[in-house]
Amino acid sequence: MTASLSDFKKECARIARLVQINALVDWDQQTNMPPGGAEARAEHSATLSELIHGISTSDSYGELLANAEAELQGADPDDDDARLLRVARRDYDRATKLPSRLVADLARHSAISQDRWVRARAENDFAGFAPYLERMFELTREAAEHLGYEDHIYDALIDNYETGARQRQVSDMFADLKPKLVELTQAIAASGRPVDSSILRGRFPIEKQKVVTTRVVSAIGYEFSRGRQDEAAHPFCTNFSRDDVRITTRFDPGYIGIALYASMHEAGHALYEQGIPSEFDASPLGSGTSLGIHESQSRLWENLVGRSRPFARFLFPHLKDAFPDVLDGAQAEDFYRAVNSVSPSLIRIDADEVTYNLHVMLRFELECELLTGALAISDLPEAWNARMEEYLGVRPPDDAHGVLQDVHWSAGIIGYFPTYSIGNLVSGQLWHAIRKAVPNLDDRIEIGSFASILNWLRANVHRHGRKFEPGELVQMATGEPLTSSYYVDYLTAKYSDIYEL
Amino acid sequence: MTASLSDFKKECARIARLVQINALVDWDQQTNMPPGGAEARAEHSATLSELIHGISTSDSYGELLANAEAELQGADPDDDDARLLRVARRDYDRATKLPSRLVADLARHSAISQDRWVRARAENDFAGFAPYLERMFELTREAAEHLGYEDHIYDALIDNYETGARQRQVSDMFADLKPKLVELTQAIAASGRPVDSSILRGRFPIEKQKVVTTRVVSAIGYEFSRGRQDEAAHPFCTNFSRDDVRITTRFDPGYIGIALYASMHEAGHALYEQGIPSEFDASPLGSGTSLGIHESQSRLWENLVGRSRPFARFLFPHLKDAFPDVLDGAQAEDFYRAVNSVSPSLIRIDADEVTYNLHVMLRFELECELLTGALAISDLPEAWNARMEEYLGVRPPDDAHGVLQDVHWSAGIIGYFPTYSIGNLVSGQLWHAIRKAVPNLDDRIEIGSFASILNWLRANVHRHGRKFEPGELVQMATGEPLTSSYYVDYLTAKYSDIYEL
Repeated sequence: MTASLSDFKKECARIARLVQINALVDWDQQTNMPPGGAEARAEHSATLSELIHGISTSDSYGELLANAEAELQGADPDDDDARLLRVARRDYDRATKLPSRLVADLARHSAISQDRWVRARAENDFAGFAPYLERMFELTREAAEHLGYEDHIYDALIDNYETGARQRQVSDMFADLKPKLVELTQAIAASGRPVDSSILRGRFPIEKQKVVTTRVVSAIGYEFSRGRQDEAAHPFCTNFSRDDVRITTRFDPGYIGIALYASMHEAGHALYEQGIPSEFDASPLGSGTSLGIHESQSRLWENLVGRSRPFARFLFPHLKDAFPDVLDGAQAEDFYRAVNSVSPSLIRIDADEVTYNLHVMLRFELECELLTGALAISDLPEAWNARMEEYLGVRPPDDAHGVLQDVHWSAGIIGYFPTYSIGNLVSGQLWHAIRKAVPNLDDRIEIGSFASILNWLRANVHRHGRKFEPGELVQMATGEPLTSSYYVDYLTAKYSDIYEL
Repeated sequence: MTASLSDFKKECARIARLVQINALVDWDQQTNMPPGGAEARAEHSATLSELIHGISTSDSYGELLANAEAELQGADPDDDDARLLRVARRDYDRATKLPSRLVADLARHSAISQDRWVRARAENDFAGFAPYLERMFELTREAAEHLGYEDHIYDALIDNYETGARQRQVSDMFADLKPKLVELTQAIAASGRPVDSSILRGRFPIEKQKVVTTRVVSAIGYEFSRGRQDEAAHPFCTNFSRDDVRITTRFDPGYIGIALYASMHEAGHALYEQGIPSEFDASPLGSGTSLGIHESQSRLWENLVGRSRPFARFLFPHLKDAFPDVLDGAQAEDFYRAVNSVSPSLIRIDADEVTYNLHVMLRFELECELLTGALAISDLPEAWNARMEEYLGVRPPDDAHGVLQDVHWSAGIIGYFPTYSIGNLVSGQLWHAIRKAVPNLDDRIEIGSFASILNWLRANVHRHGRKFEPGELVQMATGEPLTSSYYVDYLTAKYSDIYEL
């Protein structure tokens, strides 16, 4: 390794360690911190974030990067080190394009605006929140102009979450998905065969739920020697190195669905991070490559595996073992059907596999229109409600159950929503590839053998870290660019069977 | 507030937040971290420590400090701000007196030497450890020369842990204590009335122990809304602000003594930190003033309160409630006697109140002699064993139970041990003052009313933070300088009663 490259990597490692510490500070806040700690904790986060931002946008960091690039001139552009510099350059240029005044304004307004959103949602008061949302979109537009784009202002924003993704491409994706999902949703509603989910409700003692979720996430390959599971109001996954990847879940003593699927979802994220090669740790390549690819991992384990018939057959004996009374007389097939009930609803995070992407599409359309000015903030609630009715056939009774339900926009997270749907589509496409590569996949799942799935993901997704952009990764892993067809085919086959369409 | 002072305080707050984050990093390591996290965690600590050291010894920090001092010239030297600058100046000068080469050498050798100590203790191999200890004393001597001293090289070191303390003074303190403690120890041994401690052993389910320790630390005033209790192999107290002060304990399902008294001890430290005024938070004044004063708080609650007869009467019904079978037929008085059994033993951390200070004195004497060269490292084990026999009447069967038992010297913590005994003496002197100030103290304790004790400590100790040096604080709180007589009187009266001397 050249001296310049080695110096640069050392500085990257220093920054990465500080970023990992910041993640620990946040993890503690969400899992352990006593109420009294809140005020100081805000200072902890602010101090560390400012320090990290200062170092990673400094001229001296830029010089180290430029020197390393000079040293590597002429190297194979697909070498790990060349890719590392490319990723670091992308991050650095993005971070330094924003004037520090704007970064500070965004941070300050994000805190205020989130706070107002919490109140607005509680009080169902969109009008009171509107000026804050308006300002947030103004600041975001300003940021997008600094970041630059070719075709659509949205491109400057989505690139932050899904490198290389473009508004046009996402727009085409939803144009393709929309009629198929609407049709499937309507066919299910019209089938007159609602699924009985009552089996999921009853007395499920939390201690027993813990035993089950621990068993399940261990079974799919999550390593507790390099992680742990705690409780959090909003389950999440975080990591402080590839060897300390923590998940959280939420327990409802009257409903088994939350803890089980939140655990599988977060374990899906965690398996990705636990599978990053050790040589990438604490480097710009040392994490999942995008939010969409990350979500493909969580959704693959949660849905493609976790809500499959063979998985229900694997899991059900364990559930009966833990909760003999409440599941008395029920069969694995009942459980399979119960966790796959489809019904259009108001809240995105509670949505089933079929309707989920319609929620996302609606948000994507609206944020595009708000950014270009085609839609005014004051017209947003009505636009939301009208589209809910058009796509899902339900109309929110108030804004708290409509446009005020998600935190994202209030926090300045604009251009992010499509990554949820990209994740779903990628999970379907990866699953198709896994099915081709692994013989007798259903039999393996039914006997609780998940190693072949994990090994495939390790070899084709995890081991690359951030080396490849999401588009490249999908192409390499599946042999073709991202398409919605595999996911639509998966949904159609699965729900045609369940609802006898 | 002047601009210079305000700028300096802002920089102090930034450093304090980073120090608090480093404490969180360490807390997590000792309570939650999965085994896989160890390697990255060492990097987290090193990165953050280096950053903190860099900022707090920088020229720019020095300039901010000097500007603030210039602004405050002529102010009352006992104003909070003037004292803050005095403390900050002391810290800065100490930190900048050591060449960075020596700081790095010490850090590096400390890690290596601790690692060798762990092996040496496991393998009872003092000879293998000796070169590392030799080097540690060399480096420490070098550091002491840089720090400077007037009378004794030890003064440069102890000042780091107990500001203003001097070797001569500690030496006099032990000279005074030694004959009295040796005499008391011998009288107890000669009494022929050993105390029965068997009541402390039996089946004490951990969940029940948790209920009891939570009740006890809450009763003495520890606020769980500004803290929490977790498990750790080596119990400790730490804080990330005055409003997030965490304690840990260790549970032995076959012995009630550990968790109970470790909890009270750590809660004693925690009450001090929870009692620091909010206006001192995240400033150079925002913590306990010295290790000795800190230990006076933990020992006061653990021993002066927790091992008193009225406390046994308060606690025993709660214990019987939690462990009815194992305590069947026993009385509060049995418990009181059991937790006050005196018997000379080999291991400092297991020692009773009477013999504890003899263990400390032995270490103080030996580290002084090693520093001056009066004792050679190679002669250390024999010197240790000879003095154990002389002071305590027991001789270690091997070095693992002798000179290798404590981590301190291997880690470069030299000049620290006396703070344990200073803490004990201060606890006795404070207790005497509390007795004078609070009428019916024993009755209050017996009914579980501890507020008058805590309020006295808050008013006379906690509220000052680091504003006053330990010597000043003792004088202010008790009206006289530190003396051993109160502690000796306390021990003599208590154990004469128990052992009918």
